[in-house]
Amino acid sequence: MSVSQLVTEARVKEILETVDYFLFDCDGVLWDGNGVIEGSVETIKKLKSLGKKVYYVTNNSSKSRQDYLEKCKECGFPAELDDIVCTAYAAAQYLKNIGFKNKVYLMGKDESMGTELKDAGIQYFGPGPDPLEGNLKEWFAMRLDPEVKCVVVGFDPHISYMKIMKAASYLRNPDCIFIGTNEDRSLPAKDKDIVIPGTGCMVLPVALAANRRPILMGKPETNMFDLLKKVRNIDPSRCLMTGDSISTDIVFAKNCGVRSMLVLSGMSTEDDLITANGKGSNADPNKQPDVYAQKLSEFGKFI
Amino acid sequence: MSVSQLVTEARVKEILETVDYFLFDCDGVLWDGNGVIEGSVETIKKLKSLGKKVYYVTNNSSKSRQDYLEKCKECGFPAELDDIVCTAYAAAQYLKNIGFKNKVYLMGKDESMGTELKDAGIQYFGPGPDPLEGNLKEWFAMRLDPEVKCVVVGFDPHISYMKIMKAASYLRNPDCIFIGTNEDRSLPAKDKDIVIPGTGCMVLPVALAANRRPILMGKPETNMFDLLKKVRNIDPSRCLMTGDSISTDIVFAKNCGVRSMLVLSGMSTEDDLITANGKGSNADPNKQPDVYAQKLSEFGKFI
Repeated sequence: MSVSQLVTEARVKEILETVDYFLFDCDGVLWDGNGVIEGSVETIKKLKSLGKKVYYVTNNSSKSRQDYLEKCKECGFPAELDDIVCTAYAAAQYLKNIGFKNKVYLMGKDESMGTELKDAGIQYFGPGPDPLEGNLKEWFAMRLDPEVKCVVVGFDPHISYMKIMKAASYLRNPDCIFIGTNEDRSLPAKDKDIVIPGTGCMVLPVALAANRRPILMGKPETNMFDLLKKVRNIDPSRCLMTGDSISTDIVFAKNCGVRSMLVLSGMSTEDDLITANGKGSNADPNKQPDVYAQKLSEFGKFI
Repeated sequence: MSVSQLVTEARVKEILETVDYFLFDCDGVLWDGNGVIEGSVETIKKLKSLGKKVYYVTNNSSKSRQDYLEKCKECGFPAELDDIVCTAYAAAQYLKNIGFKNKVYLMGKDESMGTELKDAGIQYFGPGPDPLEGNLKEWFAMRLDPEVKCVVVGFDPHISYMKIMKAASYLRNPDCIFIGTNEDRSLPAKDKDIVIPGTGCMVLPVALAANRRPILMGKPETNMFDLLKKVRNIDPSRCLMTGDSISTDIVFAKNCGVRSMLVLSGMSTEDDLITANGKGSNADPNKQPDVYAQKLSEFGKFI
């Protein structure tokens, strides 16, 4: 492994001298399906005590910013509302910023996606169970709301055939905007037998049925960083993005032009890192973090 | 349009002289969401009266062979059970042929996929509603059946978060076989406002969550043709496959080494055909039907 560097005391010192803004992915970095990842709270607290700005940047669309704030506090991570950028918030702000005045058909949780849309003053409907009903003939006779000019798909544990049908049908109108929060495959959960499906499992079937690609809010797209830059006036050259997924977090950092650290406590494995750094001609500079660590506390112990 | 030829009396004559086995896709060729496509019954009857063998080869996994037989009869198409090859049947036969003795976790309808598995003597569970229940902690505690060694995903209008979770979790075991009937995007329904999602909307989220590719039974894969050849001893050089989808039916025909006819009464449009035949350097021989017609009756009128 020649390109990405393991964290050492010297490298941490250099990072602390040149980075003011620390962006963190959450699931797989700070916590996972088993709870808080050991040592991560202490690391964040040390950074804060040095006066560093800490931002939580998450693709998870099952929570609003307020939910995330509560989750951070509950786990012991220091946070204010403005430190949190999540895809539910990003989707609502995207629509607000383009002056969207119509209705949204929402596949996603009311308490996360819905709350953020409401806070941005945007009308929507769709959350909650929508179980199978009727037959082909009745489906063809379904009435679509002509005011719907956007379909937003986020994490929706009530995904159903009716919802995919409705979302794809609204999207037959080429003027109907299609927003997906993110395309994450599953939630990080080391050493578990159960796979917890991610938002990609809701976004992809709609994209397939509609034969359209969504505008994506989540990493690796840059929307959330653009939002942060706009509101908090951040200098990308003094940022470090830390995440557990090469294809999501590290590619996001590259797309945003910021440095990156990979932790191996979540989605991506050491093998993924070796592949990115180059097995023969397979090297992919877009997937190479600047530094890596087994987990965040390996970085924290040198602070 | 230079490569694929419009049906003419001379071409139909030549086809009738050189083809004994006529394979037909159903949705979009014989019928669609609006009912029987005008003139298709008459065309099939003419072929039968000339002593031609007619096979119905469909990706639709929401019906068993028996269901298809009834649907054919109801619409007026002459058919016997052995004339029908569908993906539910193909999936069951695939498992039977490899001597599969364990249990299947099935995402699909009991009355189609389930019936075919049962007829092939294969144990399964899974069909029917499986609505959202519990939370992350409870999901992680879920018990998987250790006898499940195959996940089959077909058309499942009861698609749910729990089902995707279970299917993907069984597939964590690399020895667990993953079969998808097909990856069709939607059902053909000309001039309708509503998009009817296809089996791809069930297969893809499972593939994504499990990070695995399924073995596909449906067109454009050759499994259904292999099955037909094996059982009915068909000569590929004397076959014509007729379908409405370039990416499904025409590519299937090419993969099977048989001639093909595209009808424009379903999924693929004249623009798709022009693209396949070559706009500049875009030509794709794998997507070029030998002949094409607006609809099947345009072929039938020359018989």
